[in-house]
Amino acid sequence: MIKKLIDEIVKKDAPIVVGLDPMLSYIPGHLFEEPSKRLGDTPECAAEAIFEFNRQIIDAISDLVPAVKPQIAMYEQFGIPGLICYEKTVRYAKEKGLIVIADVKRGDIGSTSAAYATAHVGKIKIGNAEVTPFASDFATVNPYLGTDGVKPFVDSCNTFDKGIFVLVKTSNPSSGEFQDKLIDGRPLYELVADKVVEWGSASMDGEYSNVGAVVGATYPEQGEKLRKLMPNTYILVPGYGAQGGRGKDLKHFFNKDGLGAIINSSRGIIAAYKQEDYKQYGEKGFAEAARAAVLAMKKDIRENI
Amino acid sequence: MIKKLIDEIVKKDAPIVVGLDPMLSYIPGHLFEEPSKRLGDTPECAAEAIFEFNRQIIDAISDLVPAVKPQIAMYEQFGIPGLICYEKTVRYAKEKGLIVIADVKRGDIGSTSAAYATAHVGKIKIGNAEVTPFASDFATVNPYLGTDGVKPFVDSCNTFDKGIFVLVKTSNPSSGEFQDKLIDGRPLYELVADKVVEWGSASMDGEYSNVGAVVGATYPEQGEKLRKLMPNTYILVPGYGAQGGRGKDLKHFFNKDGLGAIINSSRGIIAAYKQEDYKQYGEKGFAEAARAAVLAMKKDIRENI
Repeated sequence: MIKKLIDEIVKKDAPIVVGLDPMLSYIPGHLFEEPSKRLGDTPECAAEAIFEFNRQIIDAISDLVPAVKPQIAMYEQFGIPGLICYEKTVRYAKEKGLIVIADVKRGDIGSTSAAYATAHVGKIKIGNAEVTPFASDFATVNPYLGTDGVKPFVDSCNTFDKGIFVLVKTSNPSSGEFQDKLIDGRPLYELVADKVVEWGSASMDGEYSNVGAVVGATYPEQGEKLRKLMPNTYILVPGYGAQGGRGKDLKHFFNKDGLGAIINSSRGIIAAYKQEDYKQYGEKGFAEAARAAVLAMKKDIRENI
Repeated sequence: MIKKLIDEIVKKDAPIVVGLDPMLSYIPGHLFEEPSKRLGDTPECAAEAIFEFNRQIIDAISDLVPAVKPQIAMYEQFGIPGLICYEKTVRYAKEKGLIVIADVKRGDIGSTSAAYATAHVGKIKIGNAEVTPFASDFATVNPYLGTDGVKPFVDSCNTFDKGIFVLVKTSNPSSGEFQDKLIDGRPLYELVADKVVEWGSASMDGEYSNVGAVVGATYPEQGEKLRKLMPNTYILVPGYGAQGGRGKDLKHFFNKDGLGAIINSSRGIIAAYKQEDYKQYGEKGFAEAARAAVLAMKKDIRENI
């Protein structure tokens, strides 16, 4: 699956993934008008408005980027109607030719991780049928439980040609609290990186592995070190834009072949219409504003890597 | 919320939580007969059979134990129909007077963790309405992202009188890979325990905090140490029974007041009818077998703590 992602990155000249993390406050008022008449102040109404928001954004950007990354928490918070919207969003993005990275950060003991892998990057057998629960191509995975929590995902990568990105050094301010702690002189995130390489060696797909890593744009120095430590690992880089990461921070996340990293922006794209720079699009032009923000991001990355 | 859990533990004389982690292989064939005629080999059929399985088990044990712990992965693997079954299971258990611990092991950067907290131990505002996405009382939380990934859950504990259990030392074989690594001479899980105490001090509810910890029954020595390190922290102890933990391993997870720990058993209870000891109940007597297994577990714990 990583080979397919790389092909799309090269074809579209965009090592970019758009995060579909719709907070309710990002959704323009006019998208609520019709569903709220029918459904009132309900999760069903919110879910319909969010799906319409996602649909228009996907339509506006699908020719520019290889992938989208829906953050499932933003849907889970609306209960079942939210998760139905999540499932529809994944399916719609796939129909439009996009690769879908499910940002689920799951991880558990072996048998339970196997169930999560089935849910997001697998299939389940029910009687004589084989069913795809969620149609995503990649999932993000939390490594805290060690190998037996990650291995079922790697197995799924091999069986179903899927991929994962394991959290190594996350983009948030307190990520260092545990991840930076020194163990025999090396930070914990480097030990996790060693394991990512080990896990990944069992699922190579061309030059790179289906087992990738998450390293935040907000930590460029660590990114440079981790790039060298994991030469065949694709790095998913969150934290660009709204979280503070900038184009010039990204250079060292890439390998000399110009590959090896894919940069995520969520708010900076999907809520671009709220920024001063894109104000002229107005609320109703939110999808066109998102398209303009993707084009600006492409330019920023091209100039800096 | 921890006070309410303790009250129920004392009232029912059972520091026990039953894990509702139904693998498809646990569900007796007769529960599929009716739904499969209507629905065929579909996730909807599996979800109906699983809900009926859960319903009968809840009915058989709700007078004996204070709480159940559904593992959401086992439902998520069936996609939306599975999650509808999860939601119905949570609601049904609450109707029967049980406290529900959502075993979701969520954790992300701040704003995303806030959405997960809303989903599982919170409420969401939609227009003028306030909606409960999933009606659980506690959630399990992964600490890898540090304080800003956990704090939104603590806030939810305080706002909505809920609780969490943070992963400290998990029950699985490879939990030591990262969790046992020494940092200035102390294992990582002890550093996490220190933080659990710190986070928990902001959400005290009587003698104990609403912020609890997960420590596996399979690591009794670490449990003894962690018990002393976190005197006001309730410990959720998985790994009893099928994973290898036994009654005599549990003593040191408890404080001198006889409180401080709640022991989970999943497979050992819900699939008891498959064990030699409970064979006489047969497939159709699965719920009665589960009841008998709870009674045996109560006896084992009473004799050992």
